[in-house]
Amino acid sequence: MSEQSGEATSRLDRRKARTRAALIHAAQAFLAAGTLNVPIVEITEAADVGMGSFYNHFETKEELFRAAVEDALEVFGALLDELSTSLEDPALAFAQSFRLFGRMHRRNPELSKVLLNDTAALVRSGHGLAPRQSRDIEAAVRVGRFNVRDPQLAHAIVAGAALGLGQLLHAQPDRDDAEATDQVTEDLLRMLGVPAGEAEAVARRPLPDLDDISRRHDAA
Amino acid sequence: MSEQSGEATSRLDRRKARTRAALIHAAQAFLAAGTLNVPIVEITEAADVGMGSFYNHFETKEELFRAAVEDALEVFGALLDELSTSLEDPALAFAQSFRLFGRMHRRNPELSKVLLNDTAALVRSGHGLAPRQSRDIEAAVRVGRFNVRDPQLAHAIVAGAALGLGQLLHAQPDRDDAEATDQVTEDLLRMLGVPAGEAEAVARRPLPDLDDISRRHDAA
Repeated sequence: MSEQSGEATSRLDRRKARTRAALIHAAQAFLAAGTLNVPIVEITEAADVGMGSFYNHFETKEELFRAAVEDALEVFGALLDELSTSLEDPALAFAQSFRLFGRMHRRNPELSKVLLNDTAALVRSGHGLAPRQSRDIEAAVRVGRFNVRDPQLAHAIVAGAALGLGQLLHAQPDRDDAEATDQVTEDLLRMLGVPAGEAEAVARRPLPDLDDISRRHDAA
Repeated sequence: MSEQSGEATSRLDRRKARTRAALIHAAQAFLAAGTLNVPIVEITEAADVGMGSFYNHFETKEELFRAAVEDALEVFGALLDELSTSLEDPALAFAQSFRLFGRMHRRNPELSKVLLNDTAALVRSGHGLAPRQSRDIEAAVRVGRFNVRDPQLAHAIVAGAALGLGQLLHAQPDRDDAEATDQVTEDLLRMLGVPAGEAEAVARRPLPDLDDISRRHDAA
Protein backbone atom coordinates (compact mmCIF):
# COMPACT_ATOMS: atom_id res chain seq x y z
CA MET A 1 0.00 0.00 0.00
CA SER A 2 1.47 3.45 -0.98
CA GLU A 3 1.88 6.14 1.62
CA GLN A 4 -0.79 8.24 -0.04
CA SER A 5 -3.49 5.57 0.03
CA GLY A 6 -2.47 4.79 3.62
CA GLU A 7 -3.17 8.40 4.52
CA ALA A 8 -6.49 8.32 2.71
CA THR A 9 -7.44 5.17 4.57
CA SER A 10 -6.61 6.65 7.92
CA ARG A 11 -8.53 9.84 7.04
CA LEU A 12 -11.52 7.66 6.17
CA ASP A 13 -11.03 5.70 9.40
CA ARG A 14 -11.01 8.91 11.38
CA ARG A 15 -14.19 10.11 9.68
CA LYS A 16 -15.87 6.77 10.38
CA ALA A 17 -14.81 6.96 14.01
CA ARG A 18 -16.20 10.51 14.27
CA THR A 19 -19.54 9.41 12.78
CA ARG A 20 -19.75 6.48 15.17
CA ALA A 21 -18.91 8.70 18.13
CA ALA A 22 -21.55 11.24 17.05
CA LEU A 23 -24.20 8.50 16.88
CA ILE A 24 -23.23 7.12 20.29
CA HIS A 25 -23.21 10.59 21.80
CA ALA A 26 -26.68 11.30 20.39
CA ALA A 27 -27.97 7.95 21.66
CA GLN A 28 -26.60 8.72 25.14
CA ALA A 29 -28.52 12.00 25.16
CA PHE A 30 -31.74 10.10 24.33
CA LEU A 31 -30.89 7.52 27.02
CA ALA A 32 -30.28 10.23 29.60
CA ALA A 33 -33.64 11.79 28.71
CA GLY A 34 -35.35 8.41 28.93
CA THR A 35 -36.47 8.61 25.28
CA LEU A 36 -35.72 5.11 24.06
CA ASN A 37 -38.68 4.89 21.72
CA VAL A 38 -37.18 7.26 19.14
CA PRO A 39 -37.04 6.73 15.35
CA ILE A 40 -33.56 6.19 13.90
CA VAL A 41 -33.95 9.29 11.73
CA GLU A 42 -34.25 11.45 14.84
CA ILE A 43 -31.03 9.98 16.19
CA THR A 44 -29.15 10.60 12.93
CA GLU A 45 -30.49 14.17 12.82
CA ALA A 46 -29.37 14.78 16.41
CA ALA A 47 -25.97 13.32 15.49
CA ASP A 48 -25.88 15.44 12.31
CA VAL A 49 -25.06 12.44 10.11
CA GLY A 50 -26.88 10.93 7.15
CA MET A 51 -29.42 8.14 7.63
CA GLY A 52 -27.23 5.81 5.52
CA SER A 53 -24.30 6.34 7.89
CA PHE A 54 -26.31 4.74 10.65
CA TYR A 55 -26.39 1.40 8.87
CA ASN A 56 -22.66 1.54 8.15
CA HIS A 57 -22.16 1.29 11.90
CA PHE A 58 -25.18 -0.43 13.45
CA GLU A 59 -27.73 -2.94 12.25
CA THR A 60 -30.46 -1.87 14.63
CA LYS A 61 -31.32 0.89 17.06
CA GLU A 62 -30.92 -1.65 19.87
CA GLU A 63 -27.33 -2.28 18.78
CA LEU A 64 -26.61 1.47 18.91
CA PHE A 65 -28.20 1.82 22.36
CA ARG A 66 -26.17 -1.13 23.63
CA ALA A 67 -22.98 0.46 22.29
CA ALA A 68 -24.03 3.75 23.93
CA VAL A 69 -24.51 2.04 27.31
CA GLU A 70 -21.20 0.19 27.01
CA ASP A 71 -19.44 3.42 26.14
CA ALA A 72 -21.05 5.23 29.10
CA LEU A 73 -20.06 2.37 31.44
CA GLU A 74 -16.53 2.45 30.09
CA VAL A 75 -16.24 6.22 30.60
CA PHE A 76 -17.70 5.88 34.11
CA GLY A 77 -15.35 2.99 34.88
CA ALA A 78 -12.32 4.95 33.66
CA LEU A 79 -13.40 7.86 35.86
CA LEU A 80 -13.69 5.59 38.92
CA ASP A 81 -10.21 4.28 38.14
CA GLU A 82 -8.80 7.79 37.86
CA LEU A 83 -10.35 8.74 41.21
CA SER A 84 -8.84 5.74 42.96
CA THR A 85 -5.30 5.86 41.58
CA SER A 86 -4.15 7.70 44.71
CA LEU A 87 -5.50 4.88 46.92
CA GLU A 88 -2.77 2.31 47.38
CA ASP A 89 -4.96 -0.08 49.35
CA PRO A 90 -7.10 -2.06 46.85
CA ALA A 91 -9.79 -2.54 49.54
CA LEU A 92 -10.19 1.26 49.71
CA ALA A 93 -10.26 1.51 45.91
CA PHE A 94 -12.92 -1.20 45.74
CA ALA A 95 -15.04 0.49 48.39
CA GLN A 96 -14.77 3.96 46.87
CA SER A 97 -15.77 2.77 43.41
CA PHE A 98 -18.72 0.78 44.76
CA ARG A 99 -19.91 3.78 46.78
CA LEU A 100 -19.67 6.14 43.81
CA PHE A 101 -21.49 3.66 41.58
CA GLY A 102 -24.29 3.39 44.16
CA ARG A 103 -24.67 7.17 44.08
CA MET A 104 -25.05 7.14 40.28
CA HIS A 105 -28.61 5.69 40.30
CA ARG A 106 -30.26 8.88 41.56
CA ARG A 107 -27.89 11.23 39.75
CA ASN A 108 -28.46 9.64 36.37
CA PRO A 109 -31.66 7.59 36.73
CA GLU A 110 -32.18 6.89 33.04
CA LEU A 111 -28.70 5.56 32.47
CA SER A 112 -29.10 3.61 35.70
CA LYS A 113 -32.32 1.99 34.50
CA VAL A 114 -30.76 1.03 31.20
CA LEU A 115 -27.82 -0.54 33.05
CA LEU A 116 -30.09 -2.38 35.46
CA ASN A 117 -31.97 -3.89 32.52
CA ASP A 118 -28.78 -5.40 31.19
CA THR A 119 -27.85 -7.71 34.05
CA ALA A 120 -25.59 -9.87 31.93
CA ALA A 121 -23.43 -6.89 30.90
CA LEU A 122 -23.02 -5.72 34.48
CA VAL A 123 -22.03 -9.14 35.76
CA ARG A 124 -20.22 -10.73 32.84
CA SER A 125 -19.09 -8.02 30.45
CA GLY A 126 -15.42 -7.54 29.66
CA HIS A 127 -16.01 -3.77 29.56
CA GLY A 128 -17.16 -1.17 32.03
CA LEU A 129 -17.53 -1.95 35.71
CA ALA A 130 -17.39 -5.76 35.90
CA PRO A 131 -13.71 -6.22 34.96
CA ARG A 132 -12.70 -3.30 37.21
CA GLN A 133 -14.55 -4.75 40.21
CA SER A 134 -12.93 -8.14 39.54
CA ARG A 135 -9.50 -6.53 39.29
CA ASP A 136 -9.93 -4.70 42.62
CA ILE A 137 -11.18 -7.84 44.38
CA GLU A 138 -8.29 -9.92 43.05
CA ALA A 139 -5.74 -7.26 44.02
CA ALA A 140 -7.17 -7.05 47.55
CA VAL A 141 -7.05 -10.85 47.86
CA ARG A 142 -3.41 -10.88 46.69
CA VAL A 143 -2.27 -8.43 49.36
CA GLY A 144 -4.32 -10.19 52.04
CA ARG A 145 -6.92 -7.45 52.52
CA PHE A 146 -9.78 -9.65 51.32
CA ASN A 147 -10.13 -13.26 52.28
CA VAL A 148 -12.32 -15.16 49.82
CA ARG A 149 -12.08 -18.65 48.47
CA ASP A 150 -13.16 -17.83 44.93
CA PRO A 151 -12.76 -14.23 43.69
CA GLN A 152 -15.06 -14.88 40.70
CA LEU A 153 -17.89 -15.95 42.98
CA ALA A 154 -17.19 -12.97 45.23
CA HIS A 155 -17.46 -10.72 42.19
CA ALA A 156 -20.77 -12.31 41.13
CA ILE A 157 -22.15 -11.41 44.57
CA VAL A 158 -20.74 -7.87 44.43
CA ALA A 159 -22.06 -7.20 40.91
CA GLY A 160 -25.43 -8.66 41.87
CA ALA A 161 -25.54 -6.59 45.04
CA ALA A 162 -24.87 -3.45 42.97
CA LEU A 163 -27.88 -4.36 40.81
CA GLY A 164 -30.10 -5.16 43.78
CA LEU A 165 -29.17 -1.87 45.41
CA GLY A 166 -29.99 0.07 42.23
CA GLN A 167 -33.39 -1.63 41.97
CA LEU A 168 -34.15 -0.86 45.60
CA LEU A 169 -33.18 2.80 45.21
CA HIS A 170 -35.59 3.16 42.28
CA ALA A 171 -38.35 1.30 44.16
CA GLN A 172 -37.90 3.45 47.28
CA PRO A 173 -37.32 7.02 46.08
CA ASP A 174 -37.41 8.38 49.64
CA ARG A 175 -34.56 6.20 50.85
CA ASP A 176 -31.23 7.95 51.45
CA ASP A 177 -29.09 6.63 48.60
CA ALA A 178 -25.73 7.52 50.15
CA GLU A 179 -26.58 5.84 53.47
CA ALA A 180 -27.97 2.73 51.74
CA THR A 181 -24.97 2.45 49.45
CA ASP A 182 -22.49 2.80 52.30
CA GLN A 183 -24.33 0.17 54.35
CA VAL A 184 -24.27 -2.28 51.44
CA THR A 185 -20.57 -1.52 50.95
CA GLU A 186 -19.92 -2.24 54.63
CA ASP A 187 -21.85 -5.53 54.44
CA LEU A 188 -19.92 -6.59 51.35
CA LEU A 189 -16.57 -5.67 52.91
CA ARG A 190 -17.38 -7.90 55.90
CA MET A 191 -18.35 -10.68 53.52
CA LEU A 192 -15.01 -10.20 51.76
CA GLY A 193 -13.22 -10.78 55.04
CA VAL A 194 -12.63 -7.24 56.35
CA PRO A 195 -13.11 -7.09 60.15
CA ALA A 196 -16.44 -5.50 61.15
CA GLY A 197 -15.14 -2.28 62.71
CA GLU A 198 -12.80 -1.62 59.84
CA ALA A 199 -15.49 -2.38 57.25
CA GLU A 200 -17.71 0.24 58.86
CA ALA A 201 -14.92 2.84 58.81
CA VAL A 202 -13.81 2.11 55.24
CA ALA A 203 -17.40 2.47 53.99
CA ARG A 204 -17.69 5.96 55.55
CA ARG A 205 -14.43 7.57 54.46
CA PRO A 206 -14.72 10.93 52.70
CA LEU A 207 -15.40 10.60 48.98
CA PRO A 208 -14.17 12.71 46.07
CA ASP A 209 -16.55 15.58 45.29
CA LEU A 210 -19.36 14.29 43.08
CA ASP A 211 -20.22 17.59 41.43
CA ASP A 212 -16.62 17.98 40.46
CA ILE A 213 -16.81 14.49 38.99
CA SER A 214 -19.94 15.35 36.99
CA ARG A 215 -18.34 18.47 35.60
CA ARG A 216 -15.35 16.53 34.40
CA HIS A 217 -17.60 13.78 33.12
CA ASP A 218 -19.74 16.23 31.14
CA ALA A 219 -16.68 17.94 29.73
CA ALA A 220 -15.27 14.63 28.52
CA MET B 1 -78.85 -11.91 42.02
CA SER B 2 -80.80 -15.20 41.93
CA GLU B 3 -79.10 -18.39 43.01
CA GLN B 4 -79.27 -19.71 39.46
CA SER B 5 -77.46 -16.76 37.91
CA GLY B 6 -74.92 -16.92 40.74
CA GLU B 7 -74.19 -20.51 39.80
CA ALA B 8 -73.92 -19.57 36.13
CA THR B 9 -71.49 -16.80 37.01
CA SER B 10 -69.29 -19.07 39.04
CA ARG B 11 -69.36 -21.68 36.25
CA LEU B 12 -68.25 -18.96 33.84
CA ASP B 13 -65.56 -17.87 36.30
CA ARG B 14 -64.27 -21.41 36.56
CA ARG B 15 -64.18 -21.74 32.78
CA LYS B 16 -62.30 -18.44 32.49
CA ALA B 17 -59.81 -19.58 35.13
CA ARG B 18 -59.29 -22.86 33.26
CA THR B 19 -58.64 -21.01 29.98
CA ARG B 20 -56.17 -18.68 31.65
CA ALA B 21 -54.41 -21.62 33.31
CA ALA B 22 -54.23 -23.48 29.97
CA LEU B 23 -52.65 -20.43 28.29
CA ILE B 24 -50.13 -20.00 31.11
CA HIS B 25 -49.29 -23.69 31.07
CA ALA B 26 -48.73 -23.60 27.30
CA ALA B 27 -46.57 -20.48 27.61
CA GLN B 28 -44.47 -22.18 30.30
CA ALA B 29 -43.85 -25.11 27.94
CA PHE B 30 -42.59 -22.67 25.27
CA LEU B 31 -40.48 -20.90 27.90
CA ALA B 32 -38.97 -24.18 29.05
CA ALA B 33 -38.15 -25.06 25.44
CA GLY B 34 -36.63 -21.61 24.89
CA THR B 35 -39.13 -20.82 22.12
CA LEU B 36 -40.12 -17.27 22.95
CA ASN B 37 -40.48 -16.13 19.36
CA VAL B 38 -43.73 -18.04 18.81
CA PRO B 39 -46.92 -16.69 17.18
CA ILE B 40 -49.91 -16.29 19.50
CA VAL B 41 -51.92 -18.74 17.40
CA GLU B 42 -49.42 -21.50 18.18
CA ILE B 43 -49.80 -20.81 21.88
CA THR B 44 -53.61 -20.91 21.72
CA GLU B 45 -53.43 -24.14 19.72
CA ALA B 46 -51.09 -25.70 22.27
CA ALA B 47 -53.46 -24.54 25.02
CA ASP B 48 -56.43 -25.88 23.04
CA VAL B 49 -58.37 -22.61 23.35
CA GLY B 50 -59.71 -20.22 20.70
CA MET B 51 -57.63 -17.32 19.45
CA GLY B 52 -60.26 -14.87 20.78
CA SER B 53 -59.87 -16.31 24.29
CA PHE B 54 -56.29 -15.09 24.32
CA TYR B 55 -57.34 -11.46 24.16
CA ASN B 56 -59.91 -11.94 26.91
CA HIS B 57 -56.98 -12.60 29.24
CA PHE B 58 -53.89 -10.90 27.84
CA GLU B 59 -53.24 -7.87 25.68
CA THR B 60 -49.92 -9.08 24.32
CA LYS B 61 -47.78 -12.18 24.16
CA GLU B 62 -45.30 -10.42 26.47
CA GLU B 63 -48.04 -10.04 29.08
CA LEU B 64 -48.78 -13.77 28.89
CA PHE B 65 -45.10 -14.68 29.17
CA ARG B 66 -44.72 -12.38 32.16
CA ALA B 67 -47.71 -14.04 33.83
CA ALA B 68 -46.21 -17.44 33.00
CA VAL B 69 -42.91 -16.50 34.66
CA GLU B 70 -44.68 -15.09 37.72
CA ASP B 71 -46.74 -18.24 38.02
CA ALA B 72 -43.63 -20.44 37.70
CA LEU B 73 -41.82 -18.37 40.34
CA GLU B 74 -44.83 -18.60 42.62
CA VAL B 75 -45.05 -22.39 42.22
CA PHE B 76 -41.30 -22.69 42.80
CA GLY B 77 -41.52 -20.41 45.84
CA ALA B 78 -44.39 -22.41 47.31
CA LEU B 79 -42.35 -25.59 46.80
CA LEU B 80 -39.34 -24.09 48.59
CA ASP B 81 -41.66 -23.11 51.44
CA GLU B 82 -43.09 -26.61 51.65
CA LEU B 83 -39.59 -28.10 51.77
CA SER B 84 -38.53 -25.83 54.59
CA THR B 85 -41.57 -26.10 56.87
CA SER B 86 -39.81 -28.76 58.93
CA LEU B 87 -36.87 -26.41 59.55
CA GLU B 88 -37.59 -24.39 62.65
CA ASP B 89 -34.46 -22.27 62.36
CA PRO B 90 -35.15 -19.48 59.81
CA ALA B 91 -31.42 -19.31 58.99
CA LEU B 92 -31.57 -22.95 57.85
CA ALA B 93 -34.75 -22.28 55.86
CA PHE B 94 -33.12 -19.27 54.18
CA ALA B 95 -29.99 -21.23 53.30
CA GLN B 96 -31.88 -24.26 51.97
CA SER B 97 -34.10 -22.16 49.71
CA PHE B 98 -31.13 -20.17 48.38
CA ARG B 99 -29.22 -23.37 47.65
CA LEU B 100 -32.15 -24.97 45.84
CA PHE B 101 -32.73 -21.81 43.81
CA GLY B 102 -29.06 -21.78 42.79
CA ARG B 103 -29.41 -25.35 41.55
CA MET B 104 -32.39 -24.37 39.36
CA HIS B 105 -30.31 -22.51 36.73
CA ARG B 106 -28.81 -25.65 35.21
CA ARG B 107 -31.89 -27.80 35.73
CA ASN B 108 -34.22 -25.38 33.98
CA PRO B 109 -31.94 -23.09 31.97
CA GLU B 110 -34.66 -21.46 29.89
CA LEU B 111 -36.81 -20.52 32.86
CA SER B 112 -33.63 -19.36 34.57
CA LYS B 113 -32.73 -17.08 31.66
CA VAL B 114 -36.19 -15.58 31.58
CA LEU B 115 -35.98 -14.90 35.33
CA LEU B 116 -32.51 -13.41 35.04
CA ASN B 117 -33.78 -11.00 32.38
CA ASP B 118 -36.39 -9.66 34.75
CA THR B 119 -34.16 -8.26 37.49
CA ALA B 120 -36.83 -5.97 38.86
CA ALA B 121 -39.22 -8.87 39.46
CA LEU B 122 -36.60 -10.92 41.28
CA VAL B 123 -35.60 -8.07 43.57
CA ARG B 124 -38.79 -6.09 44.04
CA SER B 125 -41.77 -8.28 43.16
CA GLY B 126 -44.46 -9.04 45.72
CA HIS B 127 -44.71 -12.57 44.27
CA GLY B 128 -42.37 -15.50 43.90
CA LEU B 129 -39.00 -15.56 45.58
CA ALA B 130 -38.41 -11.96 46.70
CA PRO B 131 -41.08 -11.80 49.44
CA ARG B 132 -40.10 -15.25 50.70
CA GLN B 133 -36.41 -14.34 50.97
CA SER B 134 -37.39 -11.13 52.80
CA ARG B 135 -39.62 -13.07 55.16
CA ASP B 136 -36.85 -15.57 56.01
CA ILE B 137 -34.29 -12.79 56.57
CA GLU B 138 -36.67 -10.86 58.84
CA ALA B 139 -37.55 -14.00 60.82
CA ALA B 140 -33.87 -14.84 61.30
CA VAL B 141 -33.16 -11.28 62.46
CA ARG B 142 -36.06 -11.46 64.94
CA VAL B 143 -34.75 -14.62 66.61
CA GLY B 144 -31.19 -13.27 66.64
CA ARG B 145 -29.78 -15.68 64.04
CA PHE B 146 -28.97 -12.90 61.58
CA ASN B 147 -27.49 -9.60 62.63
CA VAL B 148 -28.14 -6.90 60.02
CA ARG B 149 -28.93 -3.23 60.41
CA ASP B 150 -31.46 -3.05 57.57
CA PRO B 151 -33.17 -6.27 56.43
CA GLN B 152 -34.39 -4.61 53.20
CA LEU B 153 -30.83 -3.77 52.20
CA ALA B 154 -29.72 -7.26 53.17
CA HIS B 155 -32.43 -8.66 50.92
CA ALA B 156 -31.35 -6.44 48.01
CA ILE B 157 -27.86 -7.93 48.33
CA VAL B 158 -29.18 -11.50 48.59
CA ALA B 159 -31.53 -11.14 45.60
CA GLY B 160 -28.75 -9.50 43.60
CA ALA B 161 -26.31 -12.24 44.57
CA ALA B 162 -28.82 -14.85 43.36
CA LEU B 163 -28.92 -13.06 40.00
CA GLY B 164 -25.16 -12.68 39.78
CA LEU B 165 -24.72 -16.37 40.57
CA GLY B 166 -27.22 -17.36 37.87
CA GLN B 167 -25.43 -15.22 35.28
CA LEU B 168 -22.08 -16.72 36.25
CA LEU B 169 -23.40 -20.28 36.00
CA HIS B 170 -24.62 -19.61 32.45
CA ALA B 171 -21.35 -17.89 31.50
CA GLN B 172 -19.24 -20.77 32.89
CA PRO B 173 -21.05 -23.98 31.95
CA ASP B 174 -18.20 -26.13 33.30
CA ARG B 175 -18.40 -24.70 36.80
CA ASP B 176 -19.89 -26.98 39.47
CA ASP B 177 -23.23 -25.32 40.17
CA ALA B 178 -23.82 -26.99 43.54
CA GLU B 179 -20.37 -26.05 44.85
CA ALA B 180 -20.65 -22.47 43.59
CA THR B 181 -24.13 -22.05 45.05
CA ASP B 182 -23.10 -23.40 48.44
CA GLN B 183 -20.04 -21.11 48.53
CA VAL B 184 -22.20 -18.07 47.74
CA THR B 185 -24.67 -19.18 50.41
CA GLU B 186 -21.84 -19.45 52.94
CA ASP B 187 -20.52 -15.99 52.03
CA LEU B 188 -24.00 -14.48 52.37
CA LEU B 189 -24.58 -16.19 55.73
CA ARG B 190 -21.36 -14.65 57.05
CA MET B 191 -22.45 -11.28 55.72
CA LEU B 192 -25.76 -11.77 57.53
CA GLY B 193 -23.90 -12.24 60.80
CA VAL B 194 -23.57 -16.03 61.10
CA PRO B 195 -20.15 -17.03 62.50
CA ALA B 196 -17.77 -18.33 59.83
CA GLY B 197 -17.59 -21.98 60.93
CA GLU B 198 -21.33 -22.23 61.32
CA ALA B 199 -21.96 -20.53 57.95
CA GLU B 200 -19.79 -23.15 56.27
CA ALA B 201 -21.65 -26.01 57.97
CA VAL B 202 -25.13 -24.60 57.30
CA ALA B 203 -24.33 -24.16 53.60
CA ARG B 204 -23.32 -27.85 53.29
CA ARG B 205 -26.20 -29.58 55.09
CA PRO B 206 -27.96 -32.36 53.19
CA LEU B 207 -30.68 -31.05 50.87
CA PRO B 208 -34.05 -32.55 49.97
CA ASP B 209 -33.84 -34.79 46.90
CA LEU B 210 -34.05 -32.64 43.77
CA ASP B 211 -35.39 -35.30 41.44
CA ASP B 212 -38.17 -35.95 43.87
CA ILE B 213 -38.84 -32.21 43.81
CA SER B 214 -38.95 -32.15 39.99
CA ARG B 215 -41.36 -35.03 39.88
CA ARG B 216 -43.71 -33.31 42.25
CA HIS B 217 -43.22 -30.05 40.38
CA ASP B 218 -44.06 -31.65 37.03
CA ALA B 219 -47.06 -33.42 38.48
CA ALA B 220 -48.43 -30.16 39.88
